[in-house]
Amino acid sequence: MKKFINKVNDVLVESLSGFAMAHQDIVQLHLDPHFVVRANKASNKVALISGGGSGHEPLHAGFVGYGMLDAACPGHVFTSPSPDQMLAAAEAVDAGKGVLFIVKNYAGDVMNFEMAAEMLSVPNATVLTSDDVAVENSTWTSGRRGVAGTVIVEKVVGSLAETGADLAACKALGDKVNQRTGSMGVALTSCTVPAAGRATFDIGDNELEMGVGIHGEPGRRREAMRPADAIVADLVAAILHDLKPAAGAEVLLMVNGFAATPLMELYLLYHSAEKLLKAQGLIVSRSLVGNYTTALDMAGASITLCLLDDEIKQHWDSPVHTAGLRRGC
Amino acid sequence: MKKFINKVNDVLVESLSGFAMAHQDIVQLHLDPHFVVRANKASNKVALISGGGSGHEPLHAGFVGYGMLDAACPGHVFTSPSPDQMLAAAEAVDAGKGVLFIVKNYAGDVMNFEMAAEMLSVPNATVLTSDDVAVENSTWTSGRRGVAGTVIVEKVVGSLAETGADLAACKALGDKVNQRTGSMGVALTSCTVPAAGRATFDIGDNELEMGVGIHGEPGRRREAMRPADAIVADLVAAILHDLKPAAGAEVLLMVNGFAATPLMELYLLYHSAEKLLKAQGLIVSRSLVGNYTTALDMAGASITLCLLDDEIKQHWDSPVHTAGLRRGC
Repeated sequence: MKKFINKVNDVLVESLSGFAMAHQDIVQLHLDPHFVVRANKASNKVALISGGGSGHEPLHAGFVGYGMLDAACPGHVFTSPSPDQMLAAAEAVDAGKGVLFIVKNYAGDVMNFEMAAEMLSVPNATVLTSDDVAVENSTWTSGRRGVAGTVIVEKVVGSLAETGADLAACKALGDKVNQRTGSMGVALTSCTVPAAGRATFDIGDNELEMGVGIHGEPGRRREAMRPADAIVADLVAAILHDLKPAAGAEVLLMVNGFAATPLMELYLLYHSAEKLLKAQGLIVSRSLVGNYTTALDMAGASITLCLLDDEIKQHWDSPVHTAGLRRGC
Repeated sequence: MKKFINKVNDVLVESLSGFAMAHQDIVQLHLDPHFVVRANKASNKVALISGGGSGHEPLHAGFVGYGMLDAACPGHVFTSPSPDQMLAAAEAVDAGKGVLFIVKNYAGDVMNFEMAAEMLSVPNATVLTSDDVAVENSTWTSGRRGVAGTVIVEKVVGSLAETGADLAACKALGDKVNQRTGSMGVALTSCTVPAAGRATFDIGDNELEMGVGIHGEPGRRREAMRPADAIVADLVAAILHDLKPAAGAEVLLMVNGFAATPLMELYLLYHSAEKLLKAQGLIVSRSLVGNYTTALDMAGASITLCLLDDEIKQHWDSPVHTAGLRRGC
């Protein structure tokens, strides 16, 4: 294992501290327990809180800021944050209109966020993201995994929350976006958890894992390496099979890197996917390409489609000011 | 070699096409010869053009847009663009106030940009970037290599050009920023050029290359893997030895990923570097962390310091609207 770290036990705090130092105009870090809030607390809005195991950066702390999250609770690498983190974060950012938790569907996260929700004295609700169409049930999940589509949920609901919308409206929009969003990933290499010190799974020099999870969970099948167009065709087909868009539907196309795949290849995947979608009569009117929901140091990528409507487009296009996504601010 | 590609010969065009499709609000791609311009041509300003071999994305096409470049000329992977690309780009973006070429100091780039400059009928000047303090002369360079500091030059001069400043003023600021900027990188793995199909250099499982170039050129020395703090201490010491900042000087600290290093580790490096600089009495008042000048699929990172003054700060902080860097737009 070659990583830029000091002691394995210090990785999280040192990385979060660097993040907070580099973006002190946007975020503030609390260390006991760990959570990240906006540098300037928002008022008169539903407070949006997300979190989960670390190793998926910029998700979630990188999306704290105007137009997206109010707080993020980072757990240790690939480990759920604890309820005390979520409670402390909720108390810090509650602005009198309730708290909405945005939680990726992994057993540990779901359990701990539920526990926090029960203990919390202010009105709250939860949006569970489950956009990964690859598999039902997986290493750490009952049902479908929440993956890169979570970024779209956070952006769109984050925008609505800034308008002063109430808790029920924010939850409803989050659920709607999740239902209209599908993702599927492919790995070319494993990732390596620092504390484990070795690859999470073995994969041959000419193999890929179709439908891999963002923690290296198994996907649908192991295959021989293929041209990008063939890989994209299978990913897109799986997502469209799930989303069943109407003819001529308008979509957001996201190509997300798992960390070790160069931007040059991500744009090549984007080209392949957009051509394919257009050939099927879909309108690709919004895009996002880059490393937004990563899997430590994995080489690989995922494709996400979101079926747009006027409400989702309006909130996708609105200003946002976070470390990981910035526009109009 | 596992990469998301189709045919090796199509990588550049497919990737550029995906880039242009994903960012059609910002850029427009020309294919014969290859160059990228702003979607909306600017008027009444010096036209800024950069370029170089591909494989360093988002550099340079990702920095075409308001507040930075007017055009970028991408060569094939790690190969200089040709004079006809530069001429065509210059003719497309010239707005009557002359053309400034921003060129990283590699023999092929320098030669071809010089040729284009001689053939160009409009007033022009060149800023040569040479911020890599690691070595004098290298595989493709006489003198010092231009690396991640080029992003700072493009951002700062790009901002000045938007004010309507003349060619001489833009060139002078570019030269000043280059002189006040130093970088040094470290590789944990090689990169793999698609057409070669194998690693550019061999490196052991417990080795790193201090001072590596962004094409995998040799650095200062091969070493055994060390803790991040020790690596950062050597990189920062080398840069400070070169820049010789005054006591209490204000700096921009950039931690740049070479592509395969996760954001989590880049922020850990940032934390280490900022602590060290503060301990030496320097003021770190601006930051940039992420993959901005990459080396195909290399795992590694570089640190860049820029000695700030009021003029540089003003132009660093100004709005910018590109695919790779966006703020205030």
